[in-house]
Amino acid sequence: MHTSVMNVTVAFGECDPAGIIYYPNYFDWFDRASWALFESAGFSWEVLSNDYEVAGMPLVDAGATFIRAVRWRDKLAIHSRVTRWNGKRFEVEHLVHRGDTLCARGTEMRVWATRHPDYPERLKGRAVPADVIARFDELAKEAAET
Amino acid sequence: MHTSVMNVTVAFGECDPAGIIYYPNYFDWFDRASWALFESAGFSWEVLSNDYEVAGMPLVDAGATFIRAVRWRDKLAIHSRVTRWNGKRFEVEHLVHRGDTLCARGTEMRVWATRHPDYPERLKGRAVPADVIARFDELAKEAAET
Amino acid sequence: MHTSVMNVTVAFGECDPAGIIYYPNYFDWFDRASWALFESAGFSWEVLSNDYEVAGMPLVDAGATFIRAVRWRDKLAIHSRVTRWNGKRFEVEHLVHRGDTLCARGTEMRVWATRHPDYPERLKGRAVPADVIARFDELAKEAAET
Amino acid sequence: MHTSVMNVTVAFGECDPAGIIYYPNYFDWFDRASWALFESAGFSWEVLSNDYEVAGMPLVDAGATFIRAVRWRDKLAIHSRVTRWNGKRFEVEHLVHRGDTLCARGTEMRVWATRHPDYPERLKGRAVPADVIARFDELAKEAAET
Repeated sequence: MHTSVMNVTVAFGECDPAGIIYYPNYFDWFDRASWALFESAGFSWEVLSNDYEVAGMPLVDAGATFIRAVRWRDKLAIHSRVTRWNGKRFEVEHLVHRGDTLCARGTEMRVWATRHPDYPERLKGRAVPADVIARFDELAKEAAET
Repeated sequence: MHTSVMNVTVAFGECDPAGIIYYPNYFDWFDRASWALFESAGFSWEVLSNDYEVAGMPLVDAGATFIRAVRWRDKLAIHSRVTRWNGKRFEVEHLVHRGDTLCARGTEMRVWATRHPDYPERLKGRAVPADVIARFDELAKEAAET
Repeated sequence: MHTSVMNVTVAFGECDPAGIIYYPNYFDWFDRASWALFESAGFSWEVLSNDYEVAGMPLVDAGATFIRAVRWRDKLAIHSRVTRWNGKRFEVEHLVHRGDTLCARGTEMRVWATRHPDYPERLKGRAVPADVIARFDELAKEAAET
Repeated sequence: MHTSVMNVTVAFGECDPAGIIYYPNYFDWFDRASWALFESAGFSWEVLSNDYEVAGMPLVDAGATFIRAVRWRDKLAIHSRVTRWNGKRFEVEHLVHRGDTLCARGTEMRVWATRHPDYPERLKGRAVPADVIARFDELAKEAAET
């Protein structure tokens, strides 16, 4: 699978009185990492909104397993990839590494959403276009060959 | 001046590894308190957006003085009022009390903003309507008489 | 099961450019709701840290399913309860209601943690004390009888 | 003055329903930028806490002027420097640039704080050591000569 990497240095304000990361911030990183994943495949927000009429990628489900505590100033690498395309839905996996140590693993189930034709203030799921999936596959193949 | 009070209990996730409030959260409270102040005077977002075409109250300036450290579980009362009406701009003052102790004092200079007629994605400042100011004055008078 | 309820009004700053809640904020509410749940059963932080030597309740796992989008100014009630006691671990469930509508369901798997005897900067899981579990059971029974 | 630069790309979750940055996030950046400024001068947290017994740099005062709205995906450069050393206190200035455009200007008045000798849970201000100030001056001189 095509994988993008987002580097994060844990900030003072992201940690709590116990001295470790305040856990909702993991999901903040996952959201950033998902946008970065699409951008790394050529699907920046400009492309998504202009060429694909995407209005958002709302979440149906999110979860994480926390394996090692991370602390202020830890340097992390978040490895993100789409693990499943399923019609309107797709699953993004995020692996949070500190050096060789896996600190957390998260998943997000998102919807490929456009504006609802009748109620523009609402979103409406639509099948992820075949060329988008194909582009991710192509990048994965290129990476495998390297 | 008409004053509204917002009660806050400092949350675990709002505190930092030093065990005290992470200071940007003060401004998060001030933003909430400003909306609550207008709502307390009868200007909920529904009224503001429908009857006054308000599209936002963006900030020109914000500041705070921190007098006492506040900690997880502290119960605070934030007293907010408009201290100045100045054409398109108005200043909101926020006093953060823990019991009788003043812990912080903040100010926000905001703009009464509507959609720009030519560029709807932009905001355009407009003078605060006289009846809005009159309503705040009236509430202040009522409070003084009580 | 003993259930506590935390009321939340969705704040402007908790919403994103799509006009709906930025999803990591759900987990911020869950964290607040878990502390409130223990407090509602008589286990405030003072009691936990002084009488039980609790140093934190770190997360092993967290997840949520998002059923309905929530928006700025929505008034929500978060119903929280412990759904499982499992040695050092316990699971907290959070149901997010807007009136009669279930908007989201979350779970947190947490650890009952004390200071590590040898490395005080680290946490060490310990079995949740029997009297804590008994207190939750007792409250549940009382609620059922009402 | 010695100046450090922190690059920020505005995240989706940092923006509000008006589509622009939720203003408290500016102060979150300023906090990160202040730590980065000290690190850039050789005063990482390790050095500060081990060699100088620094326990924190709490704020006395913070303020910002917002000149241009910033939006999701804007690439910003935050230029930070100490503008005043004043005994226990020092002022940090942050200029937020998007390309050549100055979008915001912030200031933080902070205290050089160590643990209180009698009450270790409290902080106590102490004069900023002369060699710290000298190091910043030296770096400024080097930069001016380049």
